[in-house]
Amino acid sequence: MAPLSPRVVVKVDLKKRPWQQTQPLHNRWHPEIPSVAEVKTGELFRVEMVDWTGGAVKEDGSAGDIKSIDLSTVHYLSGPIKVVDEDGVAARPGDLLAVEICNLGPLPGDEWGFTASFDRENGGGFLTDHFPCATKAIWYFEGIYAYSPQIPGVRFPGLTHPGIIGTAPSKELLRIWNERERQLEEKGVESLTLCEVVHQRPLASLPTTKGCLLGNIEERTSEWERIAKEAARTIPGRENGGNCDIKNLSSGSKIYLPVFVEGANLSTGDMHFSQGDGEISFCGAIEMSGFLELKCEIIRNGMQEYLTPMGPTTLHVNPIFEIGPVEPRFSEWLVFEGISVDESGRQHYLDATVAYKRAVLNAIDYLFKFGYSKEQVYLLLSCCPCEGRISGIVDSPNAVATLAIPTAIFDQDIRPKTRKVPTGARIVKKPDVMKSTYDGKLPITKNSSSSS
Amino acid sequence: MAPLSPRVVVKVDLKKRPWQQTQPLHNRWHPEIPSVAEVKTGELFRVEMVDWTGGAVKEDGSAGDIKSIDLSTVHYLSGPIKVVDEDGVAARPGDLLAVEICNLGPLPGDEWGFTASFDRENGGGFLTDHFPCATKAIWYFEGIYAYSPQIPGVRFPGLTHPGIIGTAPSKELLRIWNERERQLEEKGVESLTLCEVVHQRPLASLPTTKGCLLGNIEERTSEWERIAKEAARTIPGRENGGNCDIKNLSSGSKIYLPVFVEGANLSTGDMHFSQGDGEISFCGAIEMSGFLELKCEIIRNGMQEYLTPMGPTTLHVNPIFEIGPVEPRFSEWLVFEGISVDESGRQHYLDATVAYKRAVLNAIDYLFKFGYSKEQVYLLLSCCPCEGRISGIVDSPNAVATLAIPTAIFDQDIRPKTRKVPTGARIVKKPDVMKSTYDGKLPITKNSSSSS
Amino acid sequence: MAPLSPRVVVKVDLKKRPWQQTQPLHNRWHPEIPSVAEVKTGELFRVEMVDWTGGAVKEDGSAGDIKSIDLSTVHYLSGPIKVVDEDGVAARPGDLLAVEICNLGPLPGDEWGFTASFDRENGGGFLTDHFPCATKAIWYFEGIYAYSPQIPGVRFPGLTHPGIIGTAPSKELLRIWNERERQLEEKGVESLTLCEVVHQRPLASLPTTKGCLLGNIEERTSEWERIAKEAARTIPGRENGGNCDIKNLSSGSKIYLPVFVEGANLSTGDMHFSQGDGEISFCGAIEMSGFLELKCEIIRNGMQEYLTPMGPTTLHVNPIFEIGPVEPRFSEWLVFEGISVDESGRQHYLDATVAYKRAVLNAIDYLFKFGYSKEQVYLLLSCCPCEGRISGIVDSPNAVATLAIPTAIFDQDIRPKTRKVPTGARIVKKPDVMKSTYDGKLPITKNSSSSS
Amino acid sequence: MAPLSPRVVVKVDLKKRPWQQTQPLHNRWHPEIPSVAEVKTGELFRVEMVDWTGGAVKEDGSAGDIKSIDLSTVHYLSGPIKVVDEDGVAARPGDLLAVEICNLGPLPGDEWGFTASFDRENGGGFLTDHFPCATKAIWYFEGIYAYSPQIPGVRFPGLTHPGIIGTAPSKELLRIWNERERQLEEKGVESLTLCEVVHQRPLASLPTTKGCLLGNIEERTSEWERIAKEAARTIPGRENGGNCDIKNLSSGSKIYLPVFVEGANLSTGDMHFSQGDGEISFCGAIEMSGFLELKCEIIRNGMQEYLTPMGPTTLHVNPIFEIGPVEPRFSEWLVFEGISVDESGRQHYLDATVAYKRAVLNAIDYLFKFGYSKEQVYLLLSCCPCEGRISGIVDSPNAVATLAIPTAIFDQDIRPKTRKVPTGARIVKKPDVMKSTYDGKLPITKNSSSSS
Repeated sequence: MAPLSPRVVVKVDLKKRPWQQTQPLHNRWHPEIPSVAEVKTGELFRVEMVDWTGGAVKEDGSAGDIKSIDLSTVHYLSGPIKVVDEDGVAARPGDLLAVEICNLGPLPGDEWGFTASFDRENGGGFLTDHFPCATKAIWYFEGIYAYSPQIPGVRFPGLTHPGIIGTAPSKELLRIWNERERQLEEKGVESLTLCEVVHQRPLASLPTTKGCLLGNIEERTSEWERIAKEAARTIPGRENGGNCDIKNLSSGSKIYLPVFVEGANLSTGDMHFSQGDGEISFCGAIEMSGFLELKCEIIRNGMQEYLTPMGPTTLHVNPIFEIGPVEPRFSEWLVFEGISVDESGRQHYLDATVAYKRAVLNAIDYLFKFGYSKEQVYLLLSCCPCEGRISGIVDSPNAVATLAIPTAIFDQDIRPKTRKVPTGARIVKKPDVMKSTYDGKLPITKNSSSSS
Repeated sequence: MAPLSPRVVVKVDLKKRPWQQTQPLHNRWHPEIPSVAEVKTGELFRVEMVDWTGGAVKEDGSAGDIKSIDLSTVHYLSGPIKVVDEDGVAARPGDLLAVEICNLGPLPGDEWGFTASFDRENGGGFLTDHFPCATKAIWYFEGIYAYSPQIPGVRFPGLTHPGIIGTAPSKELLRIWNERERQLEEKGVESLTLCEVVHQRPLASLPTTKGCLLGNIEERTSEWERIAKEAARTIPGRENGGNCDIKNLSSGSKIYLPVFVEGANLSTGDMHFSQGDGEISFCGAIEMSGFLELKCEIIRNGMQEYLTPMGPTTLHVNPIFEIGPVEPRFSEWLVFEGISVDESGRQHYLDATVAYKRAVLNAIDYLFKFGYSKEQVYLLLSCCPCEGRISGIVDSPNAVATLAIPTAIFDQDIRPKTRKVPTGARIVKKPDVMKSTYDGKLPITKNSSSSS
Repeated sequence: MAPLSPRVVVKVDLKKRPWQQTQPLHNRWHPEIPSVAEVKTGELFRVEMVDWTGGAVKEDGSAGDIKSIDLSTVHYLSGPIKVVDEDGVAARPGDLLAVEICNLGPLPGDEWGFTASFDRENGGGFLTDHFPCATKAIWYFEGIYAYSPQIPGVRFPGLTHPGIIGTAPSKELLRIWNERERQLEEKGVESLTLCEVVHQRPLASLPTTKGCLLGNIEERTSEWERIAKEAARTIPGRENGGNCDIKNLSSGSKIYLPVFVEGANLSTGDMHFSQGDGEISFCGAIEMSGFLELKCEIIRNGMQEYLTPMGPTTLHVNPIFEIGPVEPRFSEWLVFEGISVDESGRQHYLDATVAYKRAVLNAIDYLFKFGYSKEQVYLLLSCCPCEGRISGIVDSPNAVATLAIPTAIFDQDIRPKTRKVPTGARIVKKPDVMKSTYDGKLPITKNSSSSS
Repeated sequence: MAPLSPRVVVKVDLKKRPWQQTQPLHNRWHPEIPSVAEVKTGELFRVEMVDWTGGAVKEDGSAGDIKSIDLSTVHYLSGPIKVVDEDGVAARPGDLLAVEICNLGPLPGDEWGFTASFDRENGGGFLTDHFPCATKAIWYFEGIYAYSPQIPGVRFPGLTHPGIIGTAPSKELLRIWNERERQLEEKGVESLTLCEVVHQRPLASLPTTKGCLLGNIEERTSEWERIAKEAARTIPGRENGGNCDIKNLSSGSKIYLPVFVEGANLSTGDMHFSQGDGEISFCGAIEMSGFLELKCEIIRNGMQEYLTPMGPTTLHVNPIFEIGPVEPRFSEWLVFEGISVDESGRQHYLDATVAYKRAVLNAIDYLFKFGYSKEQVYLLLSCCPCEGRISGIVDSPNAVATLAIPTAIFDQDIRPKTRKVPTGARIVKKPDVMKSTYDGKLPITKNSSSSS
């Protein structure tokens, strides 16, 4: 007889704070964070996770918690989990770890999530120069569907996925990360043309002991101090997977992760009920606590067999993914285009980031005409199942990026019509997202041609 | 009784060169290029087009024509077509022109196409620093399917679309284009961090009388000289649509184009049997001659109603699209990821272009292990129905881009397996794409870790 | 160099009647009808076909041609086509003929079709006891879309396919067909409980010299007389494929046909621009002339390898199909259910035909409430891409059949709502389908509870 | 603040038998079975259900429990649930009850199911004349996937749904059911031509006190006796919905049920992890315990507004369904065809049931060639997501039914190939399904042409 239920290898108690959990969480990548559980290949197991802020954001009526959030503490991850084969031999550096997501979802009793944009001085987001205030919307789940009291008139099925899934880096890989990110930060804004357009800051988040949680490593010991100073932040996706935010990694997906340390040391977290490509408002998915039911295989020596390094060392690789067979099915899409000309009219060269920024701005202004506030649309496009594409990347000087929105998520027909736009017909602009003031002094990007 | 067949409003003769066609073609955007045909709203009409090079690339065994191609002459477009409403009143500046693609395909008797990468000194491409040679592959069509003798082991259904569809710019819009692109070129490479990574050149293609074709404007007259010096090149997509290369604009799609001149002056061309997101090798789609069957509506005053300018003038807008209901259906995708770290290991800041470059490089090296040459994969990923996504654009400093490849186009299972890679099992590496020598002196980007 | 266009192996001239074509048509199945063309395996070839009535139904404003149609003359097929392998060796009895549909469509210049229901005395249809009159609607094609002036408010993309594709039967198979169908007819209505519910007549169409067309066999010769008396009618699908009316056999599909005679002798016809599962009104698809572009492979000895006979002889087999990757994509369906209780309230036993009849009747009465006439819906459900499913076939005594209709084909929202039904809001009931009188004396099935 | 979790309105304890549950179950349809719970419109609520046999079938190594199963006790349903609007006013006869399935799945800790075929003397199945023995296979769930140790080589994502969802009948409707089913049984096999082909028995299951469970009605009281003698069995789907076995009624679906009694009295049960169209082996889905998360709306007077009675009374209606947006996505299907000629070669008239039987038999014999036992395929086609279509229902005398099987569920390529069939290559025929002896004396339908 087979086991009827997956074995729970990491359990979380939502009534406790992250540092109080029985199986300690961690919020850094480091090879020396000890594993908290062990699984065998072929075994179905279950991992529970707190939301990425560990409960710091509340299901309440204010965006104040977003405005003042301490980003040094994120993301709280479950694991590391050591993976061994059927003979008990651990995954080894050079192997590929194939992780199948058999099931996933919110934690029972906690079926809600939030989407937010950070204050420009504290995290920002892709359009923070347009939307500098912290905002927040709460989403409730009705099974596969989510709806928000703050964004009425939309409801959509989730394409639930983990924002973060990764293996522990080796010491050498960690060194590479810290060095290249430090260089970026040190050279600063001046060296980067793109930064004049993308205003999100900081440029990188380097290791810091502030807010650091290292699982079973006892806090404030010398070992903790040493590791905390080396351990990489979890914000960007990197060679080990990590925060790749690929919105289609839902049930049935398979992730082929490179193994850098003995046992692979798999960690997961940052569960998303749904996310749009790009996760534009930064805290942009429907963020939630949740569970994963996983099954691992080890492809021995798989890094050499399947991955080609791209860079100065053999560690410069990226994971591979297969996406699963169960996704919401949409047949009609409205597509917005952006080219690499910025809001001031300046021409950029084949810059997909600028082009995508423009496509998103176009979509926001368009949907504003249908009765939504721009902040509502900013959060909506962060979390609904919209697709961001690099359509053209060679037609100098313009990159063309597109943002495709499934029309079925709206309760009104949002397509252009020869008849008049039905402004306000079915959508009442109030209520709106929760919003804090922006108290900083950075200039806001204004679009002088815009209607509001 | 309704008309049984669409009215042919632009006819081309493939035995003639572009400048010999009865209804003259054009290869520039300018408000004064006279319309060659007129259609009514609601009417189904047919437009025929030469391939974008006007027959310069041959169905032969050499990439020499690609290497020496004269890019000043492209793209050869059919039109402009004046659009009037049922009362005979022309589309006016400020209207939206809704163009439905009811049908499209290759021209009967000319069922073939080509995919190519340019020489690094003459056009380049997204990966020209890796692949500096001109290469070419010929594709033959079997109804909905394409196959290439130069890339054996793949066959796929086309998602046929026009690479270029656009309206004529106004004088003012034309001035904006020329000014911003001239500034880019003048400031040059030094001002652009990204250019160190994207090696395609030139930065922009400014107006030039060389190779210019202006429809009914008689060549070498003073009017021709004046217009040729002002007329924008067709290479980048811009506010008028143009070369947007959105691969999903197939049968049943609708394109909402802003109108800048009386009559709209719609032009189309650059037909693609199939293209991958990004069209990475630049001449990367399966390029062909073809036809479009179109139907237009005019949304009076639609620019103000539906488009919000984003930039210093009310002309800074972009078209909107609806994609059609008939597309090849794939259920299994293998996904490659890239982050914004370049081949030298240098960290870039939220740069989707760098991330996508890396995702494509990862995919090429992966498929190389299955028996293809890297040049074969470079061309294949340019033209097969693969999807390029901006997955994460906020997790500083790494943008995450993904490239998803439908596994069903291959005649072998390309997924990672615990068993050994079946190198060479079913694919014989010969034949290969046609290839010219690269005679320039620019350094080639080498990946020292790569296996070949 | 590969050939650029498929070779045309059967050409039709729509200005000529079926018996006047240069390559003669045929409307019977018989092993001795000589082949009119020969193709090699691997070769892409093109077959042109008249509509199934050979032009007897006109694009005009009357259903009179339908009422008086001579059904003894149908279906007019193109072929037979002899298939040989690359060495010139013909397909042999016992082989499987794999036919790939690479492309298909209406004949250029003839882009229209018709949907009709026959008079109850002359052909009938699935609901002929409810709708005894001959009716007709004309459809015009706008590329992938069809619309009808007689059924306003709907427009849909076609899933174009051949209604008939089959190989020639052997003498022995022909004998089996004629015998079993004759037995059915001779035993008559009394022996068949189902016939009390399904009122379409005749029970079977036995061989007849009336209306017979036998390709290259000269008419009124003794050979012609003999063959005409034996040759099977083309109305039902049988072991050789034939009139299987599988609506998904569109571009990219593959059909594995058993071979019963030397050369296979493939015939095709009865092109449908679109059809609903069941083709309920009998002349129910959007019937048109058209072309097929095909490619054949021979699987030697494939009948034994892949098909298991089911019946008294080894000839009692059925074809196998693979459906293609390009289909209209619908995401929302409204589903009507029927159980095996007939209109009088009588219980039948696991009868899927009765259940499907009821599902269709339910759908017709439902859509009638949205402003369509019942005849409009009867024809619409015959030809639009609706799906007919056998949902439950074991829950005695009720079979459950379902009819799923894609909601996107309507220009109004047809789903049930808590608000009132928007009768007549957007649909004007006039115009209606063309309709003849029913002059027979058979009783009409009335639904006393129905609202009209 | 919205409630975070659905309210559990019916809870089951799998350690208890059906008649021991705190909230009593029922296995009959009757207006007088008292409701066990009440819900408001708009409220998200959760219903738990035992499997349809109430635990009678075990996760063990024998088909003995299937052979001797007591079918008088099925199906055990949860409910009835009374539905009231936001003002507390109950649903009324004549209303439509719109039930949205927001979520569903197996009960945590009980993630397994079974598929079985009954003994020919005790239930039978669609092909019981071919497969008279009781058989059983156990399926284990890995999140969205199911696999069976008894049917190796297949694994597929479930399209989970309730087999039974229905409202309570009124007294009048109950009378209609009992009368028409009694007539069927009384007239008997002789009156039914179809029954010579479909050998499943009994013809109908009339009310019986044996095995009857009536919720809160105390057993063996006179009230219980009276109701038990009237109460309809749950086996067939009927006007109230009930056992409709529509396999696509998964998450996001909506069911519009007619209301016949005050409060609607909704009951649900017979959860299926997955089912093929037709559920051919009768106990053919992957049967399991499970939960539903539902949300109800009341469409006042909706029966008159949306449903047209079809039969002698206004109660002769059927529910309507909308299917949900989240389904497994398959792109490649192998399709088997059947015509209405039975195994003896006898011609039937437009009989979709006979045609479907033949399509299924063809599919079984085909897959047998790939290394499966016929019993394995019989059970597999009962429970995998295959589609049963009524393709042609008018081409006298042959109905054409098709069975489409998604090829991706197999770990081998099951398509016909010019190369030899890879029999036994990857599939080891042992293990097989569990199987009991057939001890009856009815003749087995043998296919003399078949290879085994």
